Amino acid sequence: MQKQGAVSQMLEGFKIVEGGITSAKGFHASGLYCGIKKKRLDLAWCYSEVPANAAGVYTMNQFQAAPLVVTKASIAVEQKLQAILVNSGVANACTGEQGLRDAYAMRQLLAGHFQIKDEYVAVTSTGVIGDLLPMDKITQGIAQITDWQTCTEPHLFEQAIMTTDLVSKRVAVETIIDGKVITIGGAAKGSGMIKPNMATMLGFVTTDAAVDPHSLQAALRQVTDESFNMIAVDGDTSTNDMVLVLANGMAGNDLLTAEHPEWSKFLAALHHVCQELAKKIARDGEGATKLIEVQVSGARNVEVARGIGKTIIMSSLVKTAMFGKDPNWGRIVCAIGYSGQEMDPNKVEVSLGPINVFKKGVPTHFDEAQAVKYLEEEHIQIFVELGLGETQAVAWGCDLTYDYVRINAAYRT
Amino acid sequence: MQKQGAVSQMLEGFKIVEGGITSAKGFHASGLYCGIKKKRLDLAWCYSEVPANAAGVYTMNQFQAAPLVVTKASIAVEQKLQAILVNSGVANACTGEQGLRDAYAMRQLLAGHFQIKDEYVAVTSTGVIGDLLPMDKITQGIAQITDWQTCTEPHLFEQAIMTTDLVSKRVAVETIIDGKVITIGGAAKGSGMIKPNMATMLGFVTTDAAVDPHSLQAALRQVTDESFNMIAVDGDTSTNDMVLVLANGMAGNDLLTAEHPEWSKFLAALHHVCQELAKKIARDGEGATKLIEVQVSGARNVEVARGIGKTIIMSSLVKTAMFGKDPNWGRIVCAIGYSGQEMDPNKVEVSLGPINVFKKGVPTHFDEAQAVKYLEEEHIQIFVELGLGETQAVAWGCDLTYDYVRINAAYRT
Repeated sequence: MQKQGAVSQMLEGFKIVEGGITSAKGFHASGLYCGIKKKRLDLAWCYSEVPANAAGVYTMNQFQAAPLVVTKASIAVEQKLQAILVNSGVANACTGEQGLRDAYAMRQLLAGHFQIKDEYVAVTSTGVIGDLLPMDKITQGIAQITDWQTCTEPHLFEQAIMTTDLVSKRVAVETIIDGKVITIGGAAKGSGMIKPNMATMLGFVTTDAAVDPHSLQAALRQVTDESFNMIAVDGDTSTNDMVLVLANGMAGNDLLTAEHPEWSKFLAALHHVCQELAKKIARDGEGATKLIEVQVSGARNVEVARGIGKTIIMSSLVKTAMFGKDPNWGRIVCAIGYSGQEMDPNKVEVSLGPINVFKKGVPTHFDEAQAVKYLEEEHIQIFVELGLGETQAVAWGCDLTYDYVRINAAYRT
Repeated sequence: MQKQGAVSQMLEGFKIVEGGITSAKGFHASGLYCGIKKKRLDLAWCYSEVPANAAGVYTMNQFQAAPLVVTKASIAVEQKLQAILVNSGVANACTGEQGLRDAYAMRQLLAGHFQIKDEYVAVTSTGVIGDLLPMDKITQGIAQITDWQTCTEPHLFEQAIMTTDLVSKRVAVETIIDGKVITIGGAAKGSGMIKPNMATMLGFVTTDAAVDPHSLQAALRQVTDESFNMIAVDGDTSTNDMVLVLANGMAGNDLLTAEHPEWSKFLAALHHVCQELAKKIARDGEGATKLIEVQVSGARNVEVARGIGKTIIMSSLVKTAMFGKDPNWGRIVCAIGYSGQEMDPNKVEVSLGPINVFKKGVPTHFDEAQAVKYLEEEHIQIFVELGLGETQAVAWGCDLTYDYVRINAAYRT
């Protein structure tokens, strides 16, 4: 049974470094308090010294929040961005015409302040659905930003984008392309879909690589399908999910496209950044005590492998069993069976970490005490081998706990 | 906005009576203890004085338990059944060749004891996945049945099929067809998918109507799609789900087919029995404190209405909000948005009971205190109007509570 995930196969040609959204050359960022939330930082910004080629992926939710509509329109103009403005506390979702006007106003305010084109500003919001943005507070907040060409406070950016997150999420890697050091860094937020009414997952990636915008968009789409799209906390897809990547070219490499001989190095590095950010979101799932990783191998195609991985990671019964340290393979097998994906019950194998619990359609006689002990780990791996083909996929999630119910049942105050 | 569900429209031409699986003429049933479970009744049987035309629907899970395979094969022979044997405690699922042999043996044992054809016996099992049936105990249990031609103890049948169920589930109705009183009664069990490893939903319906077996199968399929297939406790689909209907013809009506002038009365009565049993399963969901009913109207077709209803009823965030009495319409709207179904965000309306909370894409200014008070009810109705067409559907579920986590995280003992 194949025990190696996709991650380790990609760990080539780049190195992981300490850092985040300001690690790539020419990027500055910070966060501040403008009064949208009660106490915590609630306005984050990021600025590139030069316009960056940009790409974005957005929620599949049909209720798409106003800032997503505006940011999509911005990127569409020149496929470039130079700044990002994020507010937390209010999502500006389900806010109708006024919400759209506010998102455009927010974009214009920052563009005016930074003296850049309107369409070079991405605006994003996360927080309560249905409330209008307090535009006066955002206006005052933007006025407080004085040092956007020099300031490097990624930790404040990371904090200012958080809602129910318990920990901030950053990652950075370096690689060498055309003999130049290329850095890719990022920050993300996300915990549950909404709490009490939150709209949620945001990812921001910056790089000093020079990348053709169409290739960048294709690359982001591809790595998102193997990272942000393979995590689930509760299976709810928010109205505000968005991942943006900005490539400002300051590293001085030749313009990267899919035809560039070192394209795969860039892709591997971007893949790692997105996957690590995604895993951090899964681990910080509301109420979670552990990260659950499901590796599905032996599938005939990637849709099957992903479909089964996501079905297992979203099963409330698997999630509660993991919380209870219960090596309850029946729930995993059951989820495989109702995934709707191609499989042969008589070929399926399931392992909890190193312990094979199910083989060719029947349970093994495994050591339960050993399995329980394994489930005490903070990072649980579930391996599923379908025995039908060569394709694999990995999904990440977390356990379902009393705290998830407590956090989400609490009446809004 | 349409506030009337499909149920009330069907409440015509029949009356609800006190009763269950033995209410129709010629049906006998009881339950006993044979030692599969620690203390509670674990073996249930039902017998019809004459062979009954029969139909069944089965789980979509690709890991289909042995008793389902055997019962399907039995019905296929003559479309007739005369007896049902159910054991609880062990599901006989994921048990390979031996499991299949045991299910056939169980069928043969009861058939021999009742002196009827093997293929007239349906066998069903519910309980722990992966364990083999204790055939010696089942053999001894069958030997204890002495009064199958006279005994009428539906409450013992209902108890003997329970696993984590807190309450037994029965319903019966009467209608008049061809001037004859027709009775339809039923029993069901189901609570969560599996606990600790349980395989779960079973429904049994008996009627003394004379019904053509092909029409009966079509009718069961149709009402199942509007009843058992529209409930969700945790979204997990078990390996053992099965609904059987037996029509023994002892009421003396002319053989019912879809062409019979009173066919719709039979269908309405069968619909009611299945829907009530389904709602009782949803209400008895593991850890549930309330029944949640989602009525989706204004859809362009039934797949859309059902798809949105099921997405809402399965959302962990909607379920925790209902537990917390939080009128958190954002979570409902969000679920509609990610359902993948056809909708227009600007036409959607959402109401919590009588309180309209969302209208044409934006929140209303509703009275929160009134909404919180409404959510204290034990039966919550969520109305969604899509404003696109004339079709509606109803889905049922329950809230997600601390007890759900407690029940499902508890290590098997």
